[in-house]
Amino acid sequence: MATIWDIGVSAALNLFGAFIFLIAFALLRIQPFNDRVYFPKWYLKGLRDSPSQAGAFVRKFVNVDFRSYVTFLNWMPTALKMPEPELIEHAGLDSAVYLRIYLIGLKIFVPITVLAWVVLVPVNYTNDTLQLAKQSNVTSSNIDMLSISNIPEKSQRFWSHIVMAYAFTFWTCYVLRKEYENVANMRLQFLASAKRRPDQFTVLVRNVPPDPDESVSELVEHFFLVNHPDNYLTNQVVVNANKLAKLVKQKKKKQNWLVYYEHKYSRNNATRPFMKTGFLGLWGQKVDAIDHHIAEIERLSKEIAAERESVVTDPKAIMPAAFVSFKTRWGAAVCAQTQQSRNPTSWLTDWAPEPRDVYWDNLAIPYVSLAVRRLIMGVSFFFLTFFFMIPIALVQGFASIEGIEKKAPFLKPIIEIPIIKSVVQGFLPGIALKLFLIFLPSILMIMSKFEGFTSISSLERRSASRYYIFNLVNVFLGSIIAGSAFEQLNTFIKQSANEIPKTIGVAIPIKATFFITYIMVDGWAGIAGEILMLKPLIMYHLKNFFLVKTEKDREEAMDAGSLGFNTGEPRIQLYFLLGLVYSTVTPLLLPFILVFFAFAYVVFRHQIINVYNQEYESAAAFWPDVHKRILIALIISQLLLMGLMGTKGAAQSTPFLIALPVLTIWFYNFTGGRYEPAFIRYPLQEAMIKDTLEHAREPNLNLKGYLQSAYIHPVFKNDDDDDHDLAFAKKEDEDVLVPTKRQSRRNTPAPSKVSGGSSPSLPEAVQEHQEP
Amino acid sequence: MATIWDIGVSAALNLFGAFIFLIAFALLRIQPFNDRVYFPKWYLKGLRDSPSQAGAFVRKFVNVDFRSYVTFLNWMPTALKMPEPELIEHAGLDSAVYLRIYLIGLKIFVPITVLAWVVLVPVNYTNDTLQLAKQSNVTSSNIDMLSISNIPEKSQRFWSHIVMAYAFTFWTCYVLRKEYENVANMRLQFLASAKRRPDQFTVLVRNVPPDPDESVSELVEHFFLVNHPDNYLTNQVVVNANKLAKLVKQKKKKQNWLVYYEHKYSRNNATRPFMKTGFLGLWGQKVDAIDHHIAEIERLSKEIAAERESVVTDPKAIMPAAFVSFKTRWGAAVCAQTQQSRNPTSWLTDWAPEPRDVYWDNLAIPYVSLAVRRLIMGVSFFFLTFFFMIPIALVQGFASIEGIEKKAPFLKPIIEIPIIKSVVQGFLPGIALKLFLIFLPSILMIMSKFEGFTSISSLERRSASRYYIFNLVNVFLGSIIAGSAFEQLNTFIKQSANEIPKTIGVAIPIKATFFITYIMVDGWAGIAGEILMLKPLIMYHLKNFFLVKTEKDREEAMDAGSLGFNTGEPRIQLYFLLGLVYSTVTPLLLPFILVFFAFAYVVFRHQIINVYNQEYESAAAFWPDVHKRILIALIISQLLLMGLMGTKGAAQSTPFLIALPVLTIWFYNFTGGRYEPAFIRYPLQEAMIKDTLEHAREPNLNLKGYLQSAYIHPVFKNDDDDDHDLAFAKKEDEDVLVPTKRQSRRNTPAPSKVSGGSSPSLPEAVQEHQEP
Repeated sequence: MATIWDIGVSAALNLFGAFIFLIAFALLRIQPFNDRVYFPKWYLKGLRDSPSQAGAFVRKFVNVDFRSYVTFLNWMPTALKMPEPELIEHAGLDSAVYLRIYLIGLKIFVPITVLAWVVLVPVNYTNDTLQLAKQSNVTSSNIDMLSISNIPEKSQRFWSHIVMAYAFTFWTCYVLRKEYENVANMRLQFLASAKRRPDQFTVLVRNVPPDPDESVSELVEHFFLVNHPDNYLTNQVVVNANKLAKLVKQKKKKQNWLVYYEHKYSRNNATRPFMKTGFLGLWGQKVDAIDHHIAEIERLSKEIAAERESVVTDPKAIMPAAFVSFKTRWGAAVCAQTQQSRNPTSWLTDWAPEPRDVYWDNLAIPYVSLAVRRLIMGVSFFFLTFFFMIPIALVQGFASIEGIEKKAPFLKPIIEIPIIKSVVQGFLPGIALKLFLIFLPSILMIMSKFEGFTSISSLERRSASRYYIFNLVNVFLGSIIAGSAFEQLNTFIKQSANEIPKTIGVAIPIKATFFITYIMVDGWAGIAGEILMLKPLIMYHLKNFFLVKTEKDREEAMDAGSLGFNTGEPRIQLYFLLGLVYSTVTPLLLPFILVFFAFAYVVFRHQIINVYNQEYESAAAFWPDVHKRILIALIISQLLLMGLMGTKGAAQSTPFLIALPVLTIWFYNFTGGRYEPAFIRYPLQEAMIKDTLEHAREPNLNLKGYLQSAYIHPVFKNDDDDDHDLAFAKKEDEDVLVPTKRQSRRNTPAPSKVSGGSSPSLPEAVQEHQEP
Repeated sequence: MATIWDIGVSAALNLFGAFIFLIAFALLRIQPFNDRVYFPKWYLKGLRDSPSQAGAFVRKFVNVDFRSYVTFLNWMPTALKMPEPELIEHAGLDSAVYLRIYLIGLKIFVPITVLAWVVLVPVNYTNDTLQLAKQSNVTSSNIDMLSISNIPEKSQRFWSHIVMAYAFTFWTCYVLRKEYENVANMRLQFLASAKRRPDQFTVLVRNVPPDPDESVSELVEHFFLVNHPDNYLTNQVVVNANKLAKLVKQKKKKQNWLVYYEHKYSRNNATRPFMKTGFLGLWGQKVDAIDHHIAEIERLSKEIAAERESVVTDPKAIMPAAFVSFKTRWGAAVCAQTQQSRNPTSWLTDWAPEPRDVYWDNLAIPYVSLAVRRLIMGVSFFFLTFFFMIPIALVQGFASIEGIEKKAPFLKPIIEIPIIKSVVQGFLPGIALKLFLIFLPSILMIMSKFEGFTSISSLERRSASRYYIFNLVNVFLGSIIAGSAFEQLNTFIKQSANEIPKTIGVAIPIKATFFITYIMVDGWAGIAGEILMLKPLIMYHLKNFFLVKTEKDREEAMDAGSLGFNTGEPRIQLYFLLGLVYSTVTPLLLPFILVFFAFAYVVFRHQIINVYNQEYESAAAFWPDVHKRILIALIISQLLLMGLMGTKGAAQSTPFLIALPVLTIWFYNFTGGRYEPAFIRYPLQEAMIKDTLEHAREPNLNLKGYLQSAYIHPVFKNDDDDDHDLAFAKKEDEDVLVPTKRQSRRNTPAPSKVSGGSSPSLPEAVQEHQEP
């Protein structure tokens, strides 16, 4: 059993490791040649150029300003300095609110930790249950001295734990309510102050019923002219351009190759480059590469033109869905929130997602199909969660020495070499599981896509909630009760409803050491790894070395990444769960949670400011999920405490504890009714205010022109299929009537006023944001 | 153990009893002096007058047309004859759809019964498990020969039960889906074809935020003029007139007494009536009754006038809620379905209920209070369901012989008389429970009222769902597993999740006889009692004899009653539950269910046509609840079959059965999404069509005049507080622009064309409805 000393050593080692990572980061990030790895956001925003203009050649690559090495931890205060409104403007509301999840962790756990250490640790420590038990040869570590295990059965001291459980529940609920209110206000504020965006005026209409006489566009136009006569403006039919998008992608690839070969030829004029047409250029006919690619590109261009023609004219390519735009935000808000037709499964209206948030492939799934898909995915997810060990065990069986020798006897001599044998034996069984866990988020994402969500943000939210459940079952419960999820399921079905919390509750104090280590290894080290960005760093330099020829290539070699709500948020939730569960049981764990939240907050704030590229803006639509999951963690902690108390002979306390989950569920319903509408609906009052203001300011606004092509499938906008973002930005540039603050600044970059220099890596724009 | 012979005898006796009831009913109903008991609906609709115009004196009271005695069962075909559209017009959509619940019972159970008897009964019967068991002295009756109990363990024959379970599930779901679709269409049809009603244009706005500068009415007006500028028409602020209503009620009572005394005085001119002013007229000062009442009425009239004044002028009497009316149905539909304000708990909008459906007392409860009330009632209902036996046991303890002797020793000599003692002993313990069960629906109704619903229909729906849960726990489970609900709860908490269905499943076949008897006693006899209407019959004649002086008194002595959704529907659901649970287990029970549904359908159709007075019209808003509960019954039946199979050693079949509840839950979600919106929302397309039609037909309609006073508190409309109905009818009479069919007929009653005479009691209007 680990003692406090062991844990302390482990913590010191982990802290030291994290410190090394931080120093590495600090050194790497101030080197100009890493600039695009550690500050891609500023490049994407056009606020920073390649550091080639100024200074000597060496300076382009290595930072020789030694002052900056001394202040290598300066990025931390700088990351914290940017005030929240600036952050929202800089990185979007989603990112700013995402950071608040870490902040809420601190808000919840700082007082809980203090209270637990002041009250519960002394109460637990001043017993001698474990001392006595030790005399009768029961092993226990001095960690347990601080935990609830040290309290004798039927002791009156359990009352302090019950009172604390109440205090922690009320405090958590209080913080959650405050935070829900804040975020809801921030969202409304954001929506209210946001500049004009096409999605404010637009509604996505799906399941347009088929009509033999009219095209979809005509039908939509007529329907809305009749039913929203005063508000309807225009519509944009959704086309099935998936094939076209594929062709465009192919063409782009060939063009890249063409540039590559031309580059090669220009460097070495003697020999024209040749290539083989077969698979991966390994075999097949040998042809002149440049000529071949020119011909290919020409062929694809023709195909694309033909396909483009056919998509526009062919009625089969037109899907029964459309983006319908209204003259006013009020009109769109009304249409999005009401039922249009008698048949509740046709003419389904919903807020249009932001243009870059649209998931185009899913726009035309009919209602019945959606329902069936949901059933299939629900059942699949159940099996995935509880039975994923079965295929992995099969693979592991195959991937054993014997399995390989059986299937591929020719490998036998190699495998039998002792070193290789031991590597295979030690490595292979784990690799299947590891690979599965790496691919799990992608699998969940594919499942969500199959389910038919129409926006990327909703896809991510769905994947996040599934990932959370998977983690809860397989990481949390799986660690507490050894055995696969399927075995657990079997146990739980066969156990009675009040036995289950007892079974888990008893194991909780025992597993404290394990989870403390888990927090350090997965939490602390994970965040340190996140800030170092090893993978993007290596990939960027490899690409830069081998592929990059032009400035545009270098732009593309950058891998800014994004927050990744679908994997990041469920992982944070695990720490909320651990913190709440152990708050009354083993308060020793709480400081480790605190370090995690504080460290993660600083690191992610830095990443959001400097690195991540926001893919879409959902205006914090994910907050109700975050709120819900923290409350689930709270309820789990209450049930487990009840179970633990049950085994401690403190049965008379159960009625007092039963009120806690009831109150918490009620609190969930209450806050749901109170704040959730702000995340689903758009109040008419707000819409009306914005409409009126806009009308007064710009009475001659050509809204139709503004909206007409906002929701064109990206392949029609430009050939750059991946970069919705740019297309969207271009769209806004055209809109000369609404010059935004951001754009005017871009043209006249203000010189840094606040002291720069301390860290050359902090771009001017950060300070620029700090202007009053 | 009861044999089939016993059951047969019991069924014959019950049928004979029901037959006696029917004959009694047939005889009583054709007596003219019972006319107002058995045909009150026609009086209330003004389609029938007291049978005093024609014929001799005797004929007024006794039917002497002997032909009508011969055809005494004619009411049955006549009740069935009225086609559904006529029925909807005559009794409202609620009643017509309520009847469809019985019809759906027949639709589900006729094929299930046939299939079960053709397949399962032979499969069960051709075994000799119970024969063998009998040889080893295990008692069993020949009823069990037909049930699943007769199949030996681990038999392959269980597959037939599994296949049947699938067949029954699919059939039930098919019928439910069809029916949901039908009812949704009927509802939309009804709403579309309904004549103009104030609630189509009106939205109930609650939680109007306080404003120091403006009155509620001004605030509402301004808010909606700004946010719905094109649609807002007028508003009607809700006032707290509860005290005024009380005064009006008092005055009415005194007036009644005055009439009574004046009547007494006119009959006996010699002595003026005197009365005592004290409690119940038993003691106190002796005064002249007529003078006293005249004075009292005068005092009350003054008080009412003062109170009326103060209600209108006092700002404290004005509640932060209003009925807001719009120019178009479209405007109202938009407002009802959207969120108005940033704060989702203020400016809450919802469809206004029909004026007669409004529950005035609850209109001004703030949001937080609502949430707290819901929590309190949720917890109370939990205790009511599981612990109601505790107070009853206490009362029973007090109500025992010993208890009475202890508390009231002076009664001892009386109680000790053997006869009285045995009566008390046999009667008293049961009476507390019986009284509780009689008052239970009222208790549930009070709980719903406390929860703050704003319409009578939603109050009834809420009470119904609670009553259903109570019945499920205490009648169904309580009968299967002996013991109080609390003991069951205790058992279930301590049993594992897969033991619970087994425990219940095993008991299911054993309890078949009990439930067959229950169906006969509670179901068959209950319906026969319903049609005889003993209580209203006796009450009416008592009132008629002692109190009735004028025609208006006689009108008031009628007690038409109503469907009573809050008690009736949960009772029907119990039969669905029994039928579905026993369909695969003991098919012998099914015919009894069939008889119940068929009989109930005819009887309630008759009652709806002739007796019940519809209190409000919710346009079948209850159907989603009905649908949900039948599906709950289906899922319970599937789980119990799984449990039963588990104990029968047919464990290999469990995976096949597990798919059933999963599919059923999915089906519930699917139909919910597909049809439920029709019961919650009002499609804009419909609203627009109606608006356009109306505008074309009546371009000069004065809608404001029509709506201005539609939602005035009933006490302001007339002094007759109880009769919302009349007030509403009066309102419509004023509306000269929309002469309805019904009103024009009332003035010129068409003579019966189709053969009358067979039953003098069938009013002309029934035939009138059958005109093409």
